[in-house]
Amino acid sequence: MPQRFDHGEFPYAVFSVPGHLDAPRVGVGVADQILDLSTLLDDPVFAQPTLNPFMAQGRTAWTATRTRVREAAEVGAGPHLVPMHDAVLHLPFDVADFVDFNSSLQHATNAGRILRPGTEPVRSNWRQMPVGYHARTGTIVVSGTPVARPNGQYLQGEATVVAPSERLDVEAEVGFVVGDGSATAPLSPAEFGDRVFGVVLVLDWSARDIQALESVPLGPFLGKSFATTMSAWVLPLEALEPARVAAPVQDPQPAEYLRIAGPWALDVRLEFALNGHVVSRPRFDTMYWTPAQQLAHLTLNGTRLRTGDLFASGTVSDADEFGSFLELSWDGERPLTLPNGEVRGYLADGDEICLTAVAHGRDGSRVHLGEARGAVSPARPM
Amino acid sequence: MPQRFDHGEFPYAVFSVPGHLDAPRVGVGVADQILDLSTLLDDPVFAQPTLNPFMAQGRTAWTATRTRVREAAEVGAGPHLVPMHDAVLHLPFDVADFVDFNSSLQHATNAGRILRPGTEPVRSNWRQMPVGYHARTGTIVVSGTPVARPNGQYLQGEATVVAPSERLDVEAEVGFVVGDGSATAPLSPAEFGDRVFGVVLVLDWSARDIQALESVPLGPFLGKSFATTMSAWVLPLEALEPARVAAPVQDPQPAEYLRIAGPWALDVRLEFALNGHVVSRPRFDTMYWTPAQQLAHLTLNGTRLRTGDLFASGTVSDADEFGSFLELSWDGERPLTLPNGEVRGYLADGDEICLTAVAHGRDGSRVHLGEARGAVSPARPM
Repeated sequence: MPQRFDHGEFPYAVFSVPGHLDAPRVGVGVADQILDLSTLLDDPVFAQPTLNPFMAQGRTAWTATRTRVREAAEVGAGPHLVPMHDAVLHLPFDVADFVDFNSSLQHATNAGRILRPGTEPVRSNWRQMPVGYHARTGTIVVSGTPVARPNGQYLQGEATVVAPSERLDVEAEVGFVVGDGSATAPLSPAEFGDRVFGVVLVLDWSARDIQALESVPLGPFLGKSFATTMSAWVLPLEALEPARVAAPVQDPQPAEYLRIAGPWALDVRLEFALNGHVVSRPRFDTMYWTPAQQLAHLTLNGTRLRTGDLFASGTVSDADEFGSFLELSWDGERPLTLPNGEVRGYLADGDEICLTAVAHGRDGSRVHLGEARGAVSPARPM
Repeated sequence: MPQRFDHGEFPYAVFSVPGHLDAPRVGVGVADQILDLSTLLDDPVFAQPTLNPFMAQGRTAWTATRTRVREAAEVGAGPHLVPMHDAVLHLPFDVADFVDFNSSLQHATNAGRILRPGTEPVRSNWRQMPVGYHARTGTIVVSGTPVARPNGQYLQGEATVVAPSERLDVEAEVGFVVGDGSATAPLSPAEFGDRVFGVVLVLDWSARDIQALESVPLGPFLGKSFATTMSAWVLPLEALEPARVAAPVQDPQPAEYLRIAGPWALDVRLEFALNGHVVSRPRFDTMYWTPAQQLAHLTLNGTRLRTGDLFASGTVSDADEFGSFLELSWDGERPLTLPNGEVRGYLADGDEICLTAVAHGRDGSRVHLGEARGAVSPARPM
């Protein structure tokens, strides 16, 4: 489904047009059109099927390109514009490594209460560092791709079965992609703005029953690895500059390598919808750990970044609005009733999820992030 | 350090020669020489800096190439041979996704006893499925690359510090690389032989102190992500055919999708050395889960494989011989004394680890796997 972008957003995508599906190239969203950078600009990186070569050029090239795009949009770029509804959008970049963090205190608390009742919901390590894990890159799909319900092993009463998941969930997340991987590790939080190219929305599909049986002691595996949806549009970090705000106070104060220089929380407001009905509107500025702190943590041990490294926030939940059905339905105990009368604990076959977001600038500006959308298809034969 | 290969092994590597370090290409080890496939054979896949394009051609091409190599080695391939000591070996393939399993019952039992005393060392899920997790691909390095001691957060008594790891360990593992990712998921264990291209040795560097603080509930992260060493030589699966043996009996019988058709345990005997002294000789044929079962599990949920997907066994430990210093020194409580009088709990700066392995064929044949070697360098400044 085409999005419409306002002037000043200028998000990037990789697109092709029917008849030339084998020639994807880089474009920028301008209103309801795509500005074809492969014809507008004289640089072969824009004729590539991924954003990686452009992202690897670094901050100076990103800024210069944005300036050129703004100029072209202002003077009118007729011959370089393709109607969005004629285009096919592809996965925008090759993901190098994918880390999923868990940085909402509200989500961590809710998940602990639901999954480990009777214990302290948030362990002491959680406030000492941004906890995260590596996830699968080969099953990241572009927005709009159907997601098949996974088969797996899980407990049904006392018995373990191998069957389609009965507790299929999805988490609303915000992801950040590293453009410039040339820096020596470790990075400080202050280097975030120079290394990170842009922002995507992410749907982290999660089979709670499969995850529950497999996760101790090595963490989530098949409960997550079957699919992750990423928006086709990558909003450059520069477009979020007006939406930078101070992060919530951290208590206890984190270790020195995690102390932030300048505000790197983002006033991004999500809209999480099931079958066209908004089920929650969590705010990203409530997250306990900022993406700048996550980047510093990721590299503390000497890990060198690469162009295309993706790291996501984990479920965005705030005090009132939850970004997963685990929390929204309290593990199915308190099913949601949709305006059309349908009732949902976890997801049913045919359900379509759509995650959108708007960044609110201090100057009153509004910037749209690319949407992440996916519908659940029935489990495949085993 | 060059290895020497016997006839019939014919392992693959990506190599370059001084003066042409920017032109890596594919070669095969023949005695103490490298047969340059980019000049011997008329296929551009061999002039590439990774094995991926060749691996993606599939089983028929792999077998045909092996036949051509055998013929060339028999008649003498003089002009196509490069002395191994003149060559530089590179990382042999681009790793797509990397999964580390935990498939030695002895290792799982030892680790549980050491890290979670007073609890059941091996949880019930462990015998129901091959437990594993995704690990970082961007820090996989070729054998011979120094490994810097990681910095990280860990507990020192009651206090959390940010400092160089004091419990740096390494695990001896066997890894399998997917060549042909074209099949529809799920795969049965019987498809293992058609999809997997070859075998590598892996050193899974592990900072136990960092890992202990961060791992609950999402699993290992910075305690592992700083480095993984992979052998430069990839032994094709076909070379291991004579070493296939029946796997240990599994109790309880696993779910149907994990039942193996034909023997896929491998009689591979490891030699794990510290500073030139062998510290253990674990046997790979004692592993509870076979690599064929791991591949079936990995794809049960619909995950489609890609060329270059790597999955490793986890620490190879048997009843008497342990493949990690966590176990060898029982978390430092029972330090090892080396023949030269040095004492080790965990690894010291300057220590060099070398993992080698020989596959024992039912026909009496012996086949060498590529060695994985790495020395510990001091922690980097923070």
